[in-house]
Amino acid sequence: MTLPTATLLVSCPDNKGLVAKIANFISSHNGNITHADHHTDFAAGLFLSRIEWQLEGFDIPREDINNAFAPIAASIEANWELHFSDTIPRLSIWVSRQDHCLLDLLWRQQAKEFFAAIPLIISNHPDLEHIATQFGADFYHIAITKENKAQQEAQQLELLKQYNIDLVVLAKYMQVLSPEFIRQFSKVINIHHSFLPAFAGAKPYHQAYKRGVKIIGATSHYVTAELDAGPIIEQDVARVSHRDDVADLIRKGKDLERVVLARAVRSHLQNRVLVYGERTVVFA
Amino acid sequence: MTLPTATLLVSCPDNKGLVAKIANFISSHNGNITHADHHTDFAAGLFLSRIEWQLEGFDIPREDINNAFAPIAASIEANWELHFSDTIPRLSIWVSRQDHCLLDLLWRQQAKEFFAAIPLIISNHPDLEHIATQFGADFYHIAITKENKAQQEAQQLELLKQYNIDLVVLAKYMQVLSPEFIRQFSKVINIHHSFLPAFAGAKPYHQAYKRGVKIIGATSHYVTAELDAGPIIEQDVARVSHRDDVADLIRKGKDLERVVLARAVRSHLQNRVLVYGERTVVFA
Amino acid sequence: MTLPTATLLVSCPDNKGLVAKIANFISSHNGNITHADHHTDFAAGLFLSRIEWQLEGFDIPREDINNAFAPIAASIEANWELHFSDTIPRLSIWVSRQDHCLLDLLWRQQAKEFFAAIPLIISNHPDLEHIATQFGADFYHIAITKENKAQQEAQQLELLKQYNIDLVVLAKYMQVLSPEFIRQFSKVINIHHSFLPAFAGAKPYHQAYKRGVKIIGATSHYVTAELDAGPIIEQDVARVSHRDDVADLIRKGKDLERVVLARAVRSHLQNRVLVYGERTVVFA
Amino acid sequence: MTLPTATLLVSCPDNKGLVAKIANFISSHNGNITHADHHTDFAAGLFLSRIEWQLEGFDIPREDINNAFAPIAASIEANWELHFSDTIPRLSIWVSRQDHCLLDLLWRQQAKEFFAAIPLIISNHPDLEHIATQFGADFYHIAITKENKAQQEAQQLELLKQYNIDLVVLAKYMQVLSPEFIRQFSKVINIHHSFLPAFAGAKPYHQAYKRGVKIIGATSHYVTAELDAGPIIEQDVARVSHRDDVADLIRKGKDLERVVLARAVRSHLQNRVLVYGERTVVFA
Repeated sequence: MTLPTATLLVSCPDNKGLVAKIANFISSHNGNITHADHHTDFAAGLFLSRIEWQLEGFDIPREDINNAFAPIAASIEANWELHFSDTIPRLSIWVSRQDHCLLDLLWRQQAKEFFAAIPLIISNHPDLEHIATQFGADFYHIAITKENKAQQEAQQLELLKQYNIDLVVLAKYMQVLSPEFIRQFSKVINIHHSFLPAFAGAKPYHQAYKRGVKIIGATSHYVTAELDAGPIIEQDVARVSHRDDVADLIRKGKDLERVVLARAVRSHLQNRVLVYGERTVVFA
Repeated sequence: MTLPTATLLVSCPDNKGLVAKIANFISSHNGNITHADHHTDFAAGLFLSRIEWQLEGFDIPREDINNAFAPIAASIEANWELHFSDTIPRLSIWVSRQDHCLLDLLWRQQAKEFFAAIPLIISNHPDLEHIATQFGADFYHIAITKENKAQQEAQQLELLKQYNIDLVVLAKYMQVLSPEFIRQFSKVINIHHSFLPAFAGAKPYHQAYKRGVKIIGATSHYVTAELDAGPIIEQDVARVSHRDDVADLIRKGKDLERVVLARAVRSHLQNRVLVYGERTVVFA
Repeated sequence: MTLPTATLLVSCPDNKGLVAKIANFISSHNGNITHADHHTDFAAGLFLSRIEWQLEGFDIPREDINNAFAPIAASIEANWELHFSDTIPRLSIWVSRQDHCLLDLLWRQQAKEFFAAIPLIISNHPDLEHIATQFGADFYHIAITKENKAQQEAQQLELLKQYNIDLVVLAKYMQVLSPEFIRQFSKVINIHHSFLPAFAGAKPYHQAYKRGVKIIGATSHYVTAELDAGPIIEQDVARVSHRDDVADLIRKGKDLERVVLARAVRSHLQNRVLVYGERTVVFA
Repeated sequence: MTLPTATLLVSCPDNKGLVAKIANFISSHNGNITHADHHTDFAAGLFLSRIEWQLEGFDIPREDINNAFAPIAASIEANWELHFSDTIPRLSIWVSRQDHCLLDLLWRQQAKEFFAAIPLIISNHPDLEHIATQFGADFYHIAITKENKAQQEAQQLELLKQYNIDLVVLAKYMQVLSPEFIRQFSKVINIHHSFLPAFAGAKPYHQAYKRGVKIIGATSHYVTAELDAGPIIEQDVARVSHRDDVADLIRKGKDLERVVLARAVRSHLQNRVLVYGERTVVFA
C-alpha cells in the first residue's frame, strides 16, 4: 500500500446509490481505494461510511478535494470529514498523579504505533513533569480549585490554541471538564476506570469491590457535557475473584486502562471513529 | 478420588489456628482431605473456608458429623454448612417463554454435568410445557398478575415444599419475586441479562444498545429482596460492534446467559459458593 | 431492511475502480445496498468483497443476475458467488456419540438463529437417532471400518445428492473424511476441539492436559484433504487451571465447541465467509 | 495483614493428614495463616500446597524455621521451599532489540507491582543500554555467535553469580540458552510470542498469519533444555481478523507479551508457582 492516503468519513440519510456515488467520485479521478467499509443503521435510517484511497495518481490536487467533494456531499445531505494520512495530528495528554497511561501513550508514539506528535502535557499536579521532559514535551502544571476552575480552563484552552492541538487525551486526569470547556474544544478522549455505565463517577474500583463483581472493566469515550456519558469508543474487561482486594482491582485495572485508552486513541488517529447520536461506529 | 465426600463451608472471625483446627477435626478421625481452600478477607476480618474429605474410612458416622463438629464451630463462632456429595439436590427451574436456559440446564443434568434432580418446572406462561414433559419433569403454569401475585406465590411455595426443592433457578423467569417470598425461600439463583450493576431492571439489551456499549454481559446472582442487587456468583461478557442491532445483542446474550447461569448453578451444587454480606466467595 | 436480498462474494486481483464497478452494477439497476465490505490483501495482491442489496426494486430479474454480472466479473478476473437470502440452504449434520453440538445446532435452527433446513443426520454410531427423530430429520447409521470406508463414503455421497445437501457439518464426527470424498463434496465444516494448530489429531484435551496449558480452545474450519489443516473460520478459548483435570477440560471444551461451531456455521450460512488460499475472510 | 510473612511451597505423595500436619506446625508455634491453598493431583498421586503465615508472633526464629520443618518434610517425603516476604529477589532481565517487555517490567518494579531488585540487564545487542541507565541498572552487551556461545554463556553465568541473581527473565531475548547453561542456572522465565504449543520456534507471528488463525497468543514458561517446551506459567490471547497483517499481529502481540510476562514474573516472585513434571500449579 502506497502512502499517503486520503480518508473520507461520511454519514447521511440512507438512500440508494450511496456506495456507488462515493466510490465513483474516487475512481473517476483515478484514485485507488485501499479501504472501504459501510454500515447502515436501519433503526436510525443512516448510512455511515469510511473510504480511504491512495493520493498517488489521484487527479485532484489534495487542496482541491474538499471543494470537489462538497457538491456530492450536499446532494446526499452528508456530514463528512476529509483527512490525509500524512497530516500529523497533535495531541495533548492531561494527567494527574498516575503515570501508567501517560507512559504507555508516549511509548506507543515513540514506537510508531501512533502517528502523532505529543508536544503538550498538562497536569493539575506537578508530579509527572520529569516524564514530559524525558520525552521532549512541554509540561504545564495548572492546579484546579473550585474557585479558579473557569480561569484555569481559559488558560488550558489558550494552550491548546497556542500548541495547535487537535486532540486532548485525558489519561487519568482526575478533574471534570466544564460544559463550557467542551463547547469550545470538543475533541477529548477520556479513560474511565470501569465498565460504563456501571460505576460512573468517583472511585469505581471501590464501588466494584463493594458490589462484589467478578469482572472489572475500563471504558474509553469521547467527553461530553454529561459526566461519563459520552459516546463509547472501546471497552475491555478482566476477571477478578474474591482473592482480589481493592488494591488488586486497581492494579489489574491499570493494565486494562492502558490498552483500552491506547486502542481508542489509535482508532481515532486513524480516522476510524464516526460519532452519531450517543453512539460510535469504529470501522475495523 | 473416592466418593462420597463430605464438605464443610465455614465462615468465622479471623483468628490464629483456624486451618489447623478444622483440618485436625478431619484427620484425627481418619478423613482424607481432597480439597481445602481458605480465604481471609482482611477488610471484613473474616476467615472463609471450604474443606472436602472422603467419607470412606472417616470414623464418625455421617449422621453424627454435625453434632461432632458443632462444638468446634461454636468455639470459633462459625457460620457453617455440611454437605454430602451423594445427597442429590432437588432443583426447580422457573421460566417464562424463552427456552434456551431451560434446555441448557436440562441437557447438563442429563449429561451429568450437574449432580441434581429436576422434578419441577414452573412458568407464568404455558409455552414450555412440552420440554418439561420431554425431560420427565412436572410442569405447573402459574400465571401472575398484580392482583393474584400473593396468592400465586403461596401456591409456588407450597409446590416447593411438596417437591422438597432445595434450589430454585430463575432461568429467564420474567417476574420479580416478592420480598415476602424470599423471606420464606431464600435459595434462589437468577440470571440477569446484563453486566450488573449496569442495566439493572427491564430490557437490558435495549438499554445497552442505546448506550452504545462495545461489550455486553450476563450476571448470575442470588436473589434478594432488592431487585438485581443480590450477591453475584458469576459473570461473563461478549464483544459487540456497531454491526449488532438489538436482535443481535439478544442472540449473543443468549449464549452468555446459558453458560453464566450453568456455571453459577454448578458452583452452587458443588457447594463452592459462600455468601457473606453482599459478596460471594466462589472456591475454585 | 426489506428482504429478500442478493449477496455477491467477489475475489479478484487488486485494481483501481473495483468498488465503483461493483457498486455501479447494483445502483445502476436500482438496487439498494444494505451491506458492503471490502478488504484488500496487499501481500496477496487480492481484492475481496461482500456486497448485499435488496431485490425489491432491483430491475434485473433474479434469474438473470448471474448472466448480467458475468461480463463484469470476467473483466476483473473475479472468482465470485451469488446467493439469495430466501434460498434455504440444506444442511446435513454428521455425528458420532456426543450430542452437545448436534443439539445446539438443531436448537439454533428451531430458534431461527440459522436460516437453514436440516433434513439429514448421519452417524457412524446408532446412539443419537432419537434426537434426529425428535427434530424431524432422517437418520442414517453408517458404520465405518478401515475395510468398508470407500464403500460407505460412496453411500454418504449418494445421500448428500439425494437430500440435495449444500453443507455438511461435522459436529464431533470422529472419523476422517478421505481426500477422495472431499474432492467430490467440498463444502464441509468441522469443529476441532483444540486451538489449532496446537493439538491437531487425536485426543486434543489429553494432549493439552499433558502439556499443562492455561487456556484451551476450539477451532471451526473447512475440511480439506490434509487433516485439521483447512482454512479456519472461527476460534475461541477458555481459561483452565491446575484444578481442571482431563474431564474438566472436556466439559469446558464442550461449551466452546458449541459456540465456535455455531458461529462458523452461521457465518457460512449468511455468506460471510470467503476462502482464499489457506485463509478466510469472515465479513462482519 | 501484617508483614513480613513466611511461605511454604510443598509437594509430596498424597496421604491422609497432610493439611493438618502442615497447619499444625504453624499454629502450634503461634503463627497466623494468611493464605492456605492445597491441590491434590489424583492422576499423579501428589499433594501440592502453598501456605503463608505472619512471622509476627511466630515463636520459631526465622533462621531456625528450615530446621524445624525439615523433620516434618522428611516424614511426608516432601519437596519444599521456604520463602520470606521481605527477602528482596534479585532479577536480571535479558533482552535483544525490542524494549516493550523490558520497559514494562521496570515500570512495574518502580510502581511496586513487583517486590524485587533489578540490578542487571544483559543483551546481545547494544541498543537498549540507555533504558538500563535510566532505571539505574548495569548493562552488559554480550554478543552471541555460534562460535563464541559457550564462552559468552560462561561470562553470563559469572555475572549472575557476581550480582547474586535469583531469577533471569528473558524479555524478548532472541537467543536460545544451551542445555549446559540451564543445568547451571535453572530459574529462567521466558516469554514466547505464541500460544504454545502452537508456533514454537522462530517467527511465530509469521507462522500464525500464514495459518490464518483468528486468535493469537503469548506464553510465559520456565526455560528447560528443550526449546519452548518448559512448564507454562501463564498464557493469554487476543482476537485478530483478516484485516490484521503480520505487522498488526506483532503490534497486538506486544500488548499480550507485556501482560503475560508480567503476570508470570509476579506469580513467581510471590512464590505462587509450584512446578511438578512438565506442569505448574499457580496458586491464586
